[in-house]
Amino acid sequence: MKKEAGVGEKNRAADAIAECQLLATMSEEPGRTTRRFLTPPFHDVHAHLRARMIALGMTVTVDAAGNLRAFWRPEADAGKSAGVKRLVIGSHIDTVPDAGAFDGVLGVILALELVEKARANSLPMALEVIAFSEEEGVRFGVPFLGSRAVAGRFDPALLKLKDADGVSVEGAIRCFRLNPDQLDEAAISDEAIGFFEIHIEQGPVLEAEGLQLACVTGIVGQTRCEVIFTGQANHAGTTPMRLRHDALACAAEWISGVEKLAARSEKPGKSELVATVGKIALEPNAVNVIPGSVRVSLDVRSACDATREDAAAELLNLAREISDRRLLRCETRTLMTQPAVPMDERLTAFLADSIEAAGFSPRRLPSGAGHDAMVMATRLPTAMLFLRSPGGISHHPAEAVLEGDIEAALRASWIFLQRLADQ
Amino acid sequence: MKKEAGVGEKNRAADAIAECQLLATMSEEPGRTTRRFLTPPFHDVHAHLRARMIALGMTVTVDAAGNLRAFWRPEADAGKSAGVKRLVIGSHIDTVPDAGAFDGVLGVILALELVEKARANSLPMALEVIAFSEEEGVRFGVPFLGSRAVAGRFDPALLKLKDADGVSVEGAIRCFRLNPDQLDEAAISDEAIGFFEIHIEQGPVLEAEGLQLACVTGIVGQTRCEVIFTGQANHAGTTPMRLRHDALACAAEWISGVEKLAARSEKPGKSELVATVGKIALEPNAVNVIPGSVRVSLDVRSACDATREDAAAELLNLAREISDRRLLRCETRTLMTQPAVPMDERLTAFLADSIEAAGFSPRRLPSGAGHDAMVMATRLPTAMLFLRSPGGISHHPAEAVLEGDIEAALRASWIFLQRLADQ
Repeated sequence: MKKEAGVGEKNRAADAIAECQLLATMSEEPGRTTRRFLTPPFHDVHAHLRARMIALGMTVTVDAAGNLRAFWRPEADAGKSAGVKRLVIGSHIDTVPDAGAFDGVLGVILALELVEKARANSLPMALEVIAFSEEEGVRFGVPFLGSRAVAGRFDPALLKLKDADGVSVEGAIRCFRLNPDQLDEAAISDEAIGFFEIHIEQGPVLEAEGLQLACVTGIVGQTRCEVIFTGQANHAGTTPMRLRHDALACAAEWISGVEKLAARSEKPGKSELVATVGKIALEPNAVNVIPGSVRVSLDVRSACDATREDAAAELLNLAREISDRRLLRCETRTLMTQPAVPMDERLTAFLADSIEAAGFSPRRLPSGAGHDAMVMATRLPTAMLFLRSPGGISHHPAEAVLEGDIEAALRASWIFLQRLADQ
Repeated sequence: MKKEAGVGEKNRAADAIAECQLLATMSEEPGRTTRRFLTPPFHDVHAHLRARMIALGMTVTVDAAGNLRAFWRPEADAGKSAGVKRLVIGSHIDTVPDAGAFDGVLGVILALELVEKARANSLPMALEVIAFSEEEGVRFGVPFLGSRAVAGRFDPALLKLKDADGVSVEGAIRCFRLNPDQLDEAAISDEAIGFFEIHIEQGPVLEAEGLQLACVTGIVGQTRCEVIFTGQANHAGTTPMRLRHDALACAAEWISGVEKLAARSEKPGKSELVATVGKIALEPNAVNVIPGSVRVSLDVRSACDATREDAAAELLNLAREISDRRLLRCETRTLMTQPAVPMDERLTAFLADSIEAAGFSPRRLPSGAGHDAMVMATRLPTAMLFLRSPGGISHHPAEAVLEGDIEAALRASWIFLQRLADQ
């Protein structure tokens, strides 16, 4: 254990968990945590965070996209109005419906812990903490509304999107007493040298490997497809096996093929990918009728775009091969392709070294889910730190984080900040 | 072509098709054929058939279960009130929703054609034609309400069943101006020597083999099960393949196993069976979530009860084996087991000989679907004749029958009746 960990780390971790749990009570729904973009509980969360930020001596604003932003600068720079190199640290404060307490919010709370440390230790680098207003895409069906504005990539067409109640993004912003005409001003200052996000893993890898932290290498790219197998619905009693064109039997053979191809990618020397068939719809879906058609989804992700593209093409070919052999028809459609977003190599190497210097194994891991870091990486050198997710559980009230892992994250992050400041 | 086919057979076949198509217009719904047990169009069908029966010199009644019954006896027996040996011929006149024109109805129309022939040729055997009121089980969820009454196996508890509008079987019978207290009197007379049903195959076997007719060996037995695979729902992006417990991948492996086992049964020397997974339900059924649980149906049928029972047991074991290997939970439930019902051996041999004598190949085929013959076989020696189904299509407006196959059926059936009468 390193010296700089200090005696207060233990209490800090417990306090951070308690603070996340307090924020989780600020919800649109009684008894469970649901906090969509700029809904009323946002006022409560902002009020709570603003008080903490002010107590830390930070300058607090809310930009036109509803991001709560707080700026801290070292005493030495107190007089300067420009030219102060700053690191941006943040995560999001919106949630999915019936969420856990740590997805996003933990990253904001730990950013404030780091400001506290920076202040106590006179870190020679300014820090901007951002509590992003929108990452999950729940209210308007499009994610990253907050970080898009900060990255200067907020398409004005997004203002017209409507939620389930017919309220537009523009209306939601105005209703929150913000001015959508000032969205351009939300773009991050040129003084920012990088973006750093701390987040729970939301997956089971660290737990399975007995590790506490990971250095994120990038956000995986994603391909989403739909495959429709069309055979012939027929009587389950009167049609012999040899005369069937069973769309589900065909789909089942393909689903096994999807699993096999993705599992092969986990062998040493291969670029890892995941492939999932998560959704299925049968026609006519009756006990005593041979399925006539089956529609399935395919979700393929990899940190390596070529690996993902090759796998998706191979799997759609496999669907056609199996269908041809069984004399079924097969339609395939690619609904979405999104390239991988790598984190900044230099900053990530710095972070990995800091994790190691703090006494932990610097596991490098791609993120299978999207994060604000993915959008910020289009504007700034970006690095991301994962904390182990107990049980791999997220987007669920059982979502958790261990005190020891928070201590580890704070220790590694603090070394990371010191080294960046020293540069 | 045999002599006794006569010159009128060709017109008879066309007339029978036209008559079935006319009856198909008597429906609960405009533009499509839906005729459930004792609904208003039953009055029209009864009126039409009654007129034809009376024109054939038959005595017509409707029993308390709504079966339309017509009795014809040879001139020689005109005076006798009892002791007249009779063959019962019939099929059903109810339909599934959006039905074809021939399922059931054709068997009634062809029975009347045979009466006409019997009358013209003074067949020395009485005939009772029954238009069964209920076979499909659509209105009350339980099939064979008509033939159960004729076989003397109508459980009074059935009277309490209710349809979707809350009308009971008893209410439907009374509403049709019949008396449910007289259901016992619907039981077939002891003078009946056997039951004979003519029906379309409703499957693709005869067409695939280029044959017109089949002699039914029995109605297959059936086992229905439900299997629930429970794994762990998880993020499709953040969960590596090796850490998944994907319920759909597990189910897919099993579905392929079901198909393989059933296909093996078609090898020479094996007792044939069919096995179908027709229904599937996923949780949560989302593109980006690994399926946490999958519920599937299993329908296994065979003319051989031991084959069916062994196969069902083997398939449920396979589900447990695959689940165990993948560390998933597996629940299995057997919802229905119904033994096979063999047709009468002697009568069936007679029918097969008659098919051959008429110049056709006497293909023996089990019926994969239930029929009134299945219930009547519990009371009387029973034989059943199948006509080829073009495209194997049934329970669909595209259901069809070929004129040449009707001619063939009439020719074979007439030989069958003559030989039975001569006995």
